[in-house]
Amino acid sequence: MSKKIDLHGACELLREHDDILILAHQKPDGDTLGSAFALLWALETLGKRARVECSDPFPANYRVVIGEYSPAQFTPRFVASVDIANPDLLGTLQETWQDKIDLCIDHHQVNTMSAAHSFIDPTAAATAEIAYRIVRELGVPFDCRIAGAVFLGLSTDTGCFRYPNVSAQTHRIAAEMIEAGAPHGEINRVMFETRSRALIELDKLILNTLEYHFGGLCAMVVITREATHSLGIAEHELDGVSAIPRRIEGVEVGIVMREVEGGWRISVRTRDKVDSCALCSNFGGGGHKAAGGCTIREDEQTARKLLLPAIENALIKARLLPQ
Amino acid sequence: MSKKIDLHGACELLREHDDILILAHQKPDGDTLGSAFALLWALETLGKRARVECSDPFPANYRVVIGEYSPAQFTPRFVASVDIANPDLLGTLQETWQDKIDLCIDHHQVNTMSAAHSFIDPTAAATAEIAYRIVRELGVPFDCRIAGAVFLGLSTDTGCFRYPNVSAQTHRIAAEMIEAGAPHGEINRVMFETRSRALIELDKLILNTLEYHFGGLCAMVVITREATHSLGIAEHELDGVSAIPRRIEGVEVGIVMREVEGGWRISVRTRDKVDSCALCSNFGGGGHKAAGGCTIREDEQTARKLLLPAIENALIKARLLPQ
Repeated sequence: MSKKIDLHGACELLREHDDILILAHQKPDGDTLGSAFALLWALETLGKRARVECSDPFPANYRVVIGEYSPAQFTPRFVASVDIANPDLLGTLQETWQDKIDLCIDHHQVNTMSAAHSFIDPTAAATAEIAYRIVRELGVPFDCRIAGAVFLGLSTDTGCFRYPNVSAQTHRIAAEMIEAGAPHGEINRVMFETRSRALIELDKLILNTLEYHFGGLCAMVVITREATHSLGIAEHELDGVSAIPRRIEGVEVGIVMREVEGGWRISVRTRDKVDSCALCSNFGGGGHKAAGGCTIREDEQTARKLLLPAIENALIKARLLPQ
Repeated sequence: MSKKIDLHGACELLREHDDILILAHQKPDGDTLGSAFALLWALETLGKRARVECSDPFPANYRVVIGEYSPAQFTPRFVASVDIANPDLLGTLQETWQDKIDLCIDHHQVNTMSAAHSFIDPTAAATAEIAYRIVRELGVPFDCRIAGAVFLGLSTDTGCFRYPNVSAQTHRIAAEMIEAGAPHGEINRVMFETRSRALIELDKLILNTLEYHFGGLCAMVVITREATHSLGIAEHELDGVSAIPRRIEGVEVGIVMREVEGGWRISVRTRDKVDSCALCSNFGGGGHKAAGGCTIREDEQTARKLLLPAIENALIKARLLPQ
């Protein structure tokens, strides 16, 4: 069982130790990298040796903040994880480090890491908010590199300040980081304005397979393996797709059917009225009210024949369709 | 010639007068409406009579802030315009009001209104930043309605805090408005998460006509009138399209060819290297370095045959293609 500590405790630990390894999660995103590098550079400013490790290479667009990174070589004597909610997310680093983490820094509601100490704040919109507080508490001034790293985490984990988890505090930290010299315009351009050609092809695939059911109350996207292969779309690039159908005006139930080995993975996203979890539990799946998932081990036609009546029932239950 | 006044002067004028008409620009957006309603509710809090007028109806999604609006009936004795850069933008209200504006409040760099007084701050990312300062200077507390109106202007005029014009000040005001009760999650959901079915069809049209030239340095979208008509896409819904091709990774010149009466309207958007204005001037058009436009009065094939070599030359000139 991890010992819960507060900001002061986390900073004490970091101050007391040296040769610090900072772990980011696999398939790294802007929050895990932004938080890790903000801490790295703050610790280096304090004269400590530290480095960031991650099971996967850093995607090229994060260079806007990270630059060319050459990790310092040393045997770690203190290990911190940032933005990692469970040991699996360590990826290939799991075996080596999962039982040796001294400090877990995170903002996820559910965190199952078995670190010696944990400093977790689920009210933070991004782990970068916590990294900001640590850097400030350590007394390290925010130079433009650290400010850029914090800003990267804030903006990427909030859809550029769009999601409802954004608080007044998130905006205040963003303001302070801009004043400290974070290249905010450049970060937002790279992260939000530019789309790869593969993602453009994915958008096209999604829109071309989009179908409406039940008078537009349900929108459904069907993604076959053949289509993703022929377009050269990697598995992880499909991560953000689930939310798309629900974004259409009038849609109460958004479905993404994705072909997997031996069947179809169904992602369900609903607005206020329909219970995604209940819908998915018809097929042995689950989730939350607004987001759920299940797998139907059938061919496409059979999967549709099972799924559509279940959606119809859910819409009837929610009184969006007549009995 | 308009007399330039500062924040204090603008507030003096508003305090001294009553029966105030607030004008929003035609095809109203979130900034003109957010600023107008923030001022309206602040003036009403001070016990004044005021109303907002606009040549076009308010789009339905702004109801999240405005609610059902019944304008007060009175003969105006003071007229203020908000976020209106030139008299044409008054639309059908131009004839009645263009020479009777007492106070012009705006953030556009170039403002050609002929108001008696003007309070213009081009450093503001949105006119709503100026509205915020006026409300505060007037001593009116920010209730959740006024806070929501200011937040609407800030978020919509900055692409939800994404554009480089966002400053530390923008984020600080957003933070304060969230604390004052602005329904920020709901506003962002309605303005940025939800897309109409017509816009989804437009996205599909764009992606399906997208073509790459010169090894991906140029991306081009061709929109025929037939396509827009058959999809039920209104003219004004095409406004945001011009920026899309340039957003693709590796694209230096983004082109949208849009069929108009007797020819093709060409919108050009470039990154740092190619001069849009110079490119468009080949066809009697113009613009800025990063954005230009021209009209080619030919059929599609001829227009392409004229346009593509001109783009090639521009890429050669920018040393992106060999001589």
